[in-house]
Amino acid sequence: MMTFSHIAIVGAGALGGFFGCKLVRAGQRVSFLLRSDFSTVSTHGWTIRTPSGTAVHIPADRFQSIADPSCAPPADLLLVGLKTTANNHLESLIRPLVHDHSTILTLQNGLGNEDLLARLFGPSRVIGGITHLAATRAAPGVIDHLSGGEIRIGELDSPPTPRTRAVAGLFQAAGVPCQLLDNLPQGKWEKLVWNIPFNGLGAALDLTTDRLLASPDGEALLRALMGEVIAGARGLGLSLPDSLIDWNIARTRPIGPYRTSMQVDRQLRRPMEIEAIIGEPVRRAAAAGVAVPRMTALHDMLRALDAAR
Amino acid sequence: MMTFSHIAIVGAGALGGFFGCKLVRAGQRVSFLLRSDFSTVSTHGWTIRTPSGTAVHIPADRFQSIADPSCAPPADLLLVGLKTTANNHLESLIRPLVHDHSTILTLQNGLGNEDLLARLFGPSRVIGGITHLAATRAAPGVIDHLSGGEIRIGELDSPPTPRTRAVAGLFQAAGVPCQLLDNLPQGKWEKLVWNIPFNGLGAALDLTTDRLLASPDGEALLRALMGEVIAGARGLGLSLPDSLIDWNIARTRPIGPYRTSMQVDRQLRRPMEIEAIIGEPVRRAAAAGVAVPRMTALHDMLRALDAAR
Repeated sequence: MMTFSHIAIVGAGALGGFFGCKLVRAGQRVSFLLRSDFSTVSTHGWTIRTPSGTAVHIPADRFQSIADPSCAPPADLLLVGLKTTANNHLESLIRPLVHDHSTILTLQNGLGNEDLLARLFGPSRVIGGITHLAATRAAPGVIDHLSGGEIRIGELDSPPTPRTRAVAGLFQAAGVPCQLLDNLPQGKWEKLVWNIPFNGLGAALDLTTDRLLASPDGEALLRALMGEVIAGARGLGLSLPDSLIDWNIARTRPIGPYRTSMQVDRQLRRPMEIEAIIGEPVRRAAAAGVAVPRMTALHDMLRALDAAR
Repeated sequence: MMTFSHIAIVGAGALGGFFGCKLVRAGQRVSFLLRSDFSTVSTHGWTIRTPSGTAVHIPADRFQSIADPSCAPPADLLLVGLKTTANNHLESLIRPLVHDHSTILTLQNGLGNEDLLARLFGPSRVIGGITHLAATRAAPGVIDHLSGGEIRIGELDSPPTPRTRAVAGLFQAAGVPCQLLDNLPQGKWEKLVWNIPFNGLGAALDLTTDRLLASPDGEALLRALMGEVIAGARGLGLSLPDSLIDWNIARTRPIGPYRTSMQVDRQLRRPMEIEAIIGEPVRRAAAAGVAVPRMTALHDMLRALDAAR
């Protein structure tokens, strides 16, 4: 069985910090690539808090903090949690950390990240995954974990391999539920059925999920967008069931007033992950000849909104 | 020549108040139908302020203030400035004020108002018009006049008649530039070429006109929406030139950070004039077989937003 004696977290925000800390606590050797939070995390470590008030502290001597990737040893596994709006930095961040047999796992939002990494570092090095993690960086080194935290991973173009199983085993041993995906694109599009309507409308209209769901008009629009995402996926040869629509509506309603990541970005005037979450799906659906007029209009509106920051 | 010895203003907000005061100052006998502002206006009169700091006061004894239309004498001319979201009150407000030869002029936003008034009071009584007036009700009885104030009016289904000319003459004598429209629907759709993109996106995204225009993405979306409005109008047999797009972009840019009426309504959590400004145009374009996907998506999003108030 493959082993990963050194794991590097590229993009140590809420996502990278959360999963990296899970691996640290399981005894793995983990390096966090940090930028603005380097001095805080390298001195005081990480703190993961939950809504129930519990907090876990991981002291700074349990892991390695890296400000400059060229000063760090290469890693067997790189976990990429970088915000996709910073993807132009992926090459310079990752290049010094890879060796001949490194595996790069991206859990980033949306589409196109695996392809970019494959172009940069070779498709055989890259695997992809999705996570439904609701976590925010409350302060440098402090992550609020609201809900979720399971992972699903898969090879780019094949069913799971011994390598994929080894990565899944690593997470499972760290207490992170990790499923294997037979078809990664299908898993990514399944997540988009939630992400495009809720993240997209939440950011464009500046509405929390409960307010989007509060009216028949809002629910109808969410459902129409979900239908377009499913049609887009089918146009690409994937098989997504219509029941995903009812399921996503039903599972989001109990969450209450949830601000999606793009709505938070909008409010804080930070770049929104528009291209990964909506732009690339729109382009792929269009290339497959599927009409996605609501997605297209939403994408155009989000671009106009982002450009007005 | 027709004369109008008694003029009633139905919907005495910024629009009705502004034009009504022009007529009062020209010596006309004018009644203002008032609701929440009745006690202030009937006691202290109207004040019209301009950005340059000038203010005109019209004392309350120069006009009649009406709280209950059934207690007022009928009017020869009714000027309707009611917000279209209150159109369900039009019948009860207007019915007591009309006599056999009353003329009803609506300057309300968007489409469908003339048709509603024609159904209620007979098409021969109704004429329509458009105005580019930037004015807001700053307080009860106080109107801030920012810019604009010219009117264009026309018969529902014919070129101007002696009646239309008489109404135009009345406004011109009051210092209100008033043009005659040979084709009222064309004039209304011309205004929609500005109104749908700027009012619609301004409200949906909560952006002022300058921020919508600040980026290539924003301008491209504005232009694409304008193109759909023009296509919709053409599908209805009207002839709107493509040059309206450049013209509307060019005339809006110098205005700077302007909040459209629907953006103001959004921010104050008041009903937005969605159906008159966007819903009815979308339905008419669709009925004519014209695809207006961006307008449709924008309409759906505004409905969801309005329903989330």
